[in-house]
Amino acid sequence: MQYQDRVNALVAPKGALEMLSQDEISRISEDSGQLHELFRRCSLAILNCGSDSDDAQAVMDEFNDFEIRIIQQERGVKLQLINAPSSAFVDGKMIRSVREMLFSVLRDIIFTHHEYNLARGLADASSDKITNVVFELLRNANVFRRSDDLDLIVCWGGHSIARHEYDYTKKVGHELGLRDLNICTGCGPGAMKGPMKGAAIAHAKQRIKDGVYLGLTEPGIIAAESPNPIVNQLVIMPDIEKRLEAFVRAGHGIIVFPGGAGTAEEILYLLGILLHPKNDNIPFPVVFTGPKESASYFEQIHEFIGEVLGKEAQAKYQIIIDDESTVAKVMKDGMDEVKAYRRLHHDAFYYNWKLHIPEEFQRPFEPNHERVAALNLNFDQPVHLLAADLRRAFSSIVAGNVKANGVSYIKEHGPFEIHGDKALLAKLDLLLQAFVSQQRMKLPGSEYIPCYKVVTGER
Amino acid sequence: MQYQDRVNALVAPKGALEMLSQDEISRISEDSGQLHELFRRCSLAILNCGSDSDDAQAVMDEFNDFEIRIIQQERGVKLQLINAPSSAFVDGKMIRSVREMLFSVLRDIIFTHHEYNLARGLADASSDKITNVVFELLRNANVFRRSDDLDLIVCWGGHSIARHEYDYTKKVGHELGLRDLNICTGCGPGAMKGPMKGAAIAHAKQRIKDGVYLGLTEPGIIAAESPNPIVNQLVIMPDIEKRLEAFVRAGHGIIVFPGGAGTAEEILYLLGILLHPKNDNIPFPVVFTGPKESASYFEQIHEFIGEVLGKEAQAKYQIIIDDESTVAKVMKDGMDEVKAYRRLHHDAFYYNWKLHIPEEFQRPFEPNHERVAALNLNFDQPVHLLAADLRRAFSSIVAGNVKANGVSYIKEHGPFEIHGDKALLAKLDLLLQAFVSQQRMKLPGSEYIPCYKVVTGER
Amino acid sequence: MQYQDRVNALVAPKGALEMLSQDEISRISEDSGQLHELFRRCSLAILNCGSDSDDAQAVMDEFNDFEIRIIQQERGVKLQLINAPSSAFVDGKMIRSVREMLFSVLRDIIFTHHEYNLARGLADASSDKITNVVFELLRNANVFRRSDDLDLIVCWGGHSIARHEYDYTKKVGHELGLRDLNICTGCGPGAMKGPMKGAAIAHAKQRIKDGVYLGLTEPGIIAAESPNPIVNQLVIMPDIEKRLEAFVRAGHGIIVFPGGAGTAEEILYLLGILLHPKNDNIPFPVVFTGPKESASYFEQIHEFIGEVLGKEAQAKYQIIIDDESTVAKVMKDGMDEVKAYRRLHHDAFYYNWKLHIPEEFQRPFEPNHERVAALNLNFDQPVHLLAADLRRAFSSIVAGNVKANGVSYIKEHGPFEIHGDKALLAKLDLLLQAFVSQQRMKLPGSEYIPCYKVVTGER
Amino acid sequence: MQYQDRVNALVAPKGALEMLSQDEISRISEDSGQLHELFRRCSLAILNCGSDSDDAQAVMDEFNDFEIRIIQQERGVKLQLINAPSSAFVDGKMIRSVREMLFSVLRDIIFTHHEYNLARGLADASSDKITNVVFELLRNANVFRRSDDLDLIVCWGGHSIARHEYDYTKKVGHELGLRDLNICTGCGPGAMKGPMKGAAIAHAKQRIKDGVYLGLTEPGIIAAESPNPIVNQLVIMPDIEKRLEAFVRAGHGIIVFPGGAGTAEEILYLLGILLHPKNDNIPFPVVFTGPKESASYFEQIHEFIGEVLGKEAQAKYQIIIDDESTVAKVMKDGMDEVKAYRRLHHDAFYYNWKLHIPEEFQRPFEPNHERVAALNLNFDQPVHLLAADLRRAFSSIVAGNVKANGVSYIKEHGPFEIHGDKALLAKLDLLLQAFVSQQRMKLPGSEYIPCYKVVTGER
Repeated sequence: MQYQDRVNALVAPKGALEMLSQDEISRISEDSGQLHELFRRCSLAILNCGSDSDDAQAVMDEFNDFEIRIIQQERGVKLQLINAPSSAFVDGKMIRSVREMLFSVLRDIIFTHHEYNLARGLADASSDKITNVVFELLRNANVFRRSDDLDLIVCWGGHSIARHEYDYTKKVGHELGLRDLNICTGCGPGAMKGPMKGAAIAHAKQRIKDGVYLGLTEPGIIAAESPNPIVNQLVIMPDIEKRLEAFVRAGHGIIVFPGGAGTAEEILYLLGILLHPKNDNIPFPVVFTGPKESASYFEQIHEFIGEVLGKEAQAKYQIIIDDESTVAKVMKDGMDEVKAYRRLHHDAFYYNWKLHIPEEFQRPFEPNHERVAALNLNFDQPVHLLAADLRRAFSSIVAGNVKANGVSYIKEHGPFEIHGDKALLAKLDLLLQAFVSQQRMKLPGSEYIPCYKVVTGER
Repeated sequence: MQYQDRVNALVAPKGALEMLSQDEISRISEDSGQLHELFRRCSLAILNCGSDSDDAQAVMDEFNDFEIRIIQQERGVKLQLINAPSSAFVDGKMIRSVREMLFSVLRDIIFTHHEYNLARGLADASSDKITNVVFELLRNANVFRRSDDLDLIVCWGGHSIARHEYDYTKKVGHELGLRDLNICTGCGPGAMKGPMKGAAIAHAKQRIKDGVYLGLTEPGIIAAESPNPIVNQLVIMPDIEKRLEAFVRAGHGIIVFPGGAGTAEEILYLLGILLHPKNDNIPFPVVFTGPKESASYFEQIHEFIGEVLGKEAQAKYQIIIDDESTVAKVMKDGMDEVKAYRRLHHDAFYYNWKLHIPEEFQRPFEPNHERVAALNLNFDQPVHLLAADLRRAFSSIVAGNVKANGVSYIKEHGPFEIHGDKALLAKLDLLLQAFVSQQRMKLPGSEYIPCYKVVTGER
Repeated sequence: MQYQDRVNALVAPKGALEMLSQDEISRISEDSGQLHELFRRCSLAILNCGSDSDDAQAVMDEFNDFEIRIIQQERGVKLQLINAPSSAFVDGKMIRSVREMLFSVLRDIIFTHHEYNLARGLADASSDKITNVVFELLRNANVFRRSDDLDLIVCWGGHSIARHEYDYTKKVGHELGLRDLNICTGCGPGAMKGPMKGAAIAHAKQRIKDGVYLGLTEPGIIAAESPNPIVNQLVIMPDIEKRLEAFVRAGHGIIVFPGGAGTAEEILYLLGILLHPKNDNIPFPVVFTGPKESASYFEQIHEFIGEVLGKEAQAKYQIIIDDESTVAKVMKDGMDEVKAYRRLHHDAFYYNWKLHIPEEFQRPFEPNHERVAALNLNFDQPVHLLAADLRRAFSSIVAGNVKANGVSYIKEHGPFEIHGDKALLAKLDLLLQAFVSQQRMKLPGSEYIPCYKVVTGER
Repeated sequence: MQYQDRVNALVAPKGALEMLSQDEISRISEDSGQLHELFRRCSLAILNCGSDSDDAQAVMDEFNDFEIRIIQQERGVKLQLINAPSSAFVDGKMIRSVREMLFSVLRDIIFTHHEYNLARGLADASSDKITNVVFELLRNANVFRRSDDLDLIVCWGGHSIARHEYDYTKKVGHELGLRDLNICTGCGPGAMKGPMKGAAIAHAKQRIKDGVYLGLTEPGIIAAESPNPIVNQLVIMPDIEKRLEAFVRAGHGIIVFPGGAGTAEEILYLLGILLHPKNDNIPFPVVFTGPKESASYFEQIHEFIGEVLGKEAQAKYQIIIDDESTVAKVMKDGMDEVKAYRRLHHDAFYYNWKLHIPEEFQRPFEPNHERVAALNLNFDQPVHLLAADLRRAFSSIVAGNVKANGVSYIKEHGPFEIHGDKALLAKLDLLLQAFVSQQRMKLPGSEYIPCYKVVTGER
């Protein structure tokens, strides 16, 4: 890694935080204790966005002398940066998108935190309350557009994907963009970047100047992965569950590209919700797609879903292989159906209030060995509840692979043990092994040591 | 009065209330008890804006079958109108400005009320808290503009003024508008309408399409006086004290036209604040102006101020007679000074945080006989406190003249008795007599029976 | 008249003339001989727009030291003003609308003149060529809007009308504006100003920021009557015939208010065209309207049209008395019909190419005694040709009343003699007498000496 | 090449051609004889822009059944397409940028042609006239922006460049874009595309929505090379001389990347002009730049210039190797100097009127054997005239390499013979041999047979 220059700067916000009351400014400025380090790390991730590195810890180490302070003035809040990466600046002036994202971090980490007392975790919040908070966070980030058109396509898929898979995600994005559709992803690299890049070029061809490239992230992930430079709306949701709820309520259709445990978590979250009887009639276009080389990948996923969640679950999505324009057409056509439904039921175009999300999918799940072992992976329950615990199982693997807490648990106590129905576990094991052998669990170049153990024997 | 047709309609908001969370919608929609009647009366005032009548009670009587209901839908809140005045509609479609103002009422009466628990009156709020609430109410009404220019000129003066005075207010507004300045008034007729009308024509001549005609009102007054149709931003502040604070913090300069007790209240409020030692160095352009026929009116006011508050108070304003373009130039030039000061002190351009408003001017004063009698109108106190109680004395007269509560107190118990220093009271009496004889106390055509008694004898 | 200050200034264009090639600049700048005085007089009319006077000659006399020069620079053309009326300036800066109109004059008098060699009068131009030139002049003035809506209502009527008539034109304009319709007039006072004023207020109420107030004038008239300040698009057509063609091709509907000889000229022009067989099926909403006091005025016109041009001509318009909202509704509804017709026939929305205008109505008619005497006012011809010569008869009277050339002819040779069919002339005489007695021929306050003589005896 | 589907369509213009007069429409629509085939070929080049192929003849052959017709309607002109490449359409709707460019072709080939009688070649036009025509063509294409900023950087260089050279052009474009600068190129691939691509991403990062990517081309080249999809303003100049004039008058600074004969032509054109005594004091930032591997390439060019045109010529540019941010800074800083000069001399910001271009550089040069042999490549003349003939020599080589006429001349009569001063020719030969060996003369993969012969022996 090349040693980068340092810059000191004082920057003022543009946008939502431009006009704060003195009360709000002092709330932001007060010693935020535990929050401060989180804010500092997230800010550094943003400021470092010009860099090639995606190794969070290395970045943190290189810039360990970076500091950020909130300055209070009558006129409004400012940020004082000390030893910031010079890549965020041109001739001493901060790049505008970086400035925007920096204040998105301030807004979502500090300001929103205080507004909602998120520190206390919304622990006792009702399901409805959580749905309202997700709405208000997105609205506060100015995500909703008054447009009469439904056009926000969520793209899920792995951050570590093969080149041909990445190129295919660009092609799909291009076809979506040509049809005036917009893109929402988790805002990192791989399948989260390709569709935005393709759409951006297509929007230019279609002379669309207000294309939306919405990145929904969470504090743990943004510090590791800088939002790609195409993202022009960034929201940092408090945790993975609220982030997932934001995806399914703000998006109008979902495309799933190949990915690993995280993508499997997203699929199970989505199917678990769509399988709930209350959501029976709500139209929701879902397509699994990849280049022709990925055909067998999706066959395996499809089989697993069929065996574990049943035919009904399989009916919730289409699989389209190597046909980017058909994928885009399915989404475009789906918009009409969604629009008709929302109009009929007086639901908002910009937020899917009618979708029922059971509490099991909303409550934060922080995996540890005890909780993972207690997951109920048996068939003796409604299918959407099984999906909920399967989602948690995959979430645990993601945590064990890359999230700070999860990694340290594994280091201390060994792999998570996953228990449950034997037949089910066998299928699960097979799927996970495929992820490993296809190098979807972590970036290629290192050997993957599983953070989990599928316990198919006696308990 | 011609009997007007009735219209039933269902209207959706445009703007701030367009995207509410379910929580917010249900908060608005719930049975608001005491608030509902206030909301209904204010809405009727808005809907009746095409009418010539300014007799609040007559309007209320004519439309006693008018009803308004808040309808809750996933997509957002709507208003159901029953037996609404047809003047608010063209070919069955509500006029856009009326719709805007209707939702300003909803926003400020119902929504803001719940957000701030205004029902409980901010009774224990600190001075800073009140200042912050005023800021947040204005921001919520989207009053602040990011513009680098300071240009909002507050125009005060009577609603019942002579034709030549009215014409002069238009000329002043025209000269202000020619200089790209914007207008803020109390949003009723007379001196509150003339400057907006003049500015609107001047803005058209200068090809300014985003001219601001900001009306700041309060619930008691909007029900009596429909905002004039030129107002394009309407905010209903909770009470007269917060309305006055909004004027002096959001405005960049103040012009005072001839008026009655209400205008005297405004002058005393302003001088009381500017006389406070903490505000010594804050530039604030203030001009008293009128046509040549009004010269003696301002001489009398000037003399009263000099005798009661001293030379220092007189130094806080200029008097300019019959010279509209000089008035406008003084304001325009004053903007530079204000801008330089705010820049130096890091104060916001859109809100005068640095201005100190003593609590005596912020606490709501609801006049009754006991409180009026207890006012301290003696010289044995700091001059800004004397100004505060003088302000309250005039406020009581306004209430006794036209506000519902005040009028009923007077009906039951006779006129308010005003006590204090003999010399001071003599001057006050003289001034009030002049207001009466010049027909500034109420609309011409009826005999004015004073609602006050200046008690200059032994107490 | 108050003596006005003088201002010297150098002003740069904004808009169409901002970017000229060197060739174009030098064409404009060269010694334009006869054109220069015309340009100077028109510019003075514009610059004097803040004045109350409408006496062209008095204005010219007061500012006889006014001069205007075209300055050529690489960067573009500028105008140097010497001894210009100070009313066009605020604190030394020219009011933006005045600047716009000043460059409209430059564009239409000098630039367009050279482009079209208008000096040579388009004398041999074919009918089609004239229609194309009218189009190109309007396009060059940026009059056409891409809007899919048809909304431009032409309002005709006298400049010298009674107060109650003027107030009624404002009411009609207000109702038009409430329905999102725009206004086109001859851009002077009276019935040319009222509808714009009413519409401007209605547009503000409807939050329409891009309302169109199009003034179509000609060099002879603009020098006498400054465009009213509401006009935001000004075009100076080369002569009355092209101005009339611009009205009927750019407008989507026409309202006729009470007026004198000029209004009669407009009515006959319009009916003559609509009566042509080729225009049989072209929808064109036409309404004659006035307050209830004007009922008899329109009865007389209606009778005259019936007797001279027949029932068919009467069927081309509706008369609506004292009902402004019905007038506006008729226009609004008419727009749908016009739109359907144009769509069906692939005609442009912004220019009525399909309307056939016979050459008789296009060729410039400059009245002198010989030509007036030669007019064929007999029934032995197609009705649209009779209308054409009747139009010329009224045009002659307008010229004899107020246009420089006409007035001097009359002074030298006595009144124009009008010959023709006895019965026809009798009716014409009656109508003209009514105009005289109603003071529609010239401004009230002076005795009217007719510039014409209806010769009903042997020829 | 994959066989592409065909689409028939009828498309309406958006923009400049939206509102034509009937006269103009019929002028466009009439049988244009020789022009039609040119129009058809250029249109096909545009429509095929989604294709990977850059082999003009192959495209023409594949779509030999493609036809385009101009349809005349009152409402305006439309284009009827028969058997058009489907790549220009999405779900049957033409991509907006393609539609725009298609009508740019119509505007520049047909409409402009008629307006300027370009067929007759401006043969007798004066130097000033040509400069005015270039201005008017650019203005008509809406190229000029009123912006107060100078920001249009012309990027020249080869269409056939190495990958590392291409990547470097992107980096330079990115640094230019980060500094709010815009890009103008010849609008093909290679060095004409890279800077636009880099700038587009940088503009997105800087939240610039109105970035300019101006492509200046000529009929012969557009048919061979589709404009890259980033181009958002396209102008087809009549010939290479007017295209070169457009570059130097509309651009505010010039960057030269590595290239072949065409780039050498551009360099000599530019230096020839800048060397003219009249242009001595006109600031014009010029940078030659490339990655470090290109250092020797520029050394050779630099040496050639020094030896042939002298030190003075070398002083007209800087060479900066492998330092994209310094290149961008030099341009950015240069803008201030250019701006100051233009302001001082009242020259336009958007067109460099003051720059003197001698007629030798303006007159179209159509190479044939006789004319090439007659070029004066001796030192017995002013240096700018030598530059003019050297420019023509390189222009001949470009024509002989790729332009239809040139290629057929060579086929028939063998290579062009270049005569002149022996020492000079020796240096020229060396330079040309380097271009050949570096594969800059034509796309790699085929052997290059020179179309020229440097005759250094007896004549």
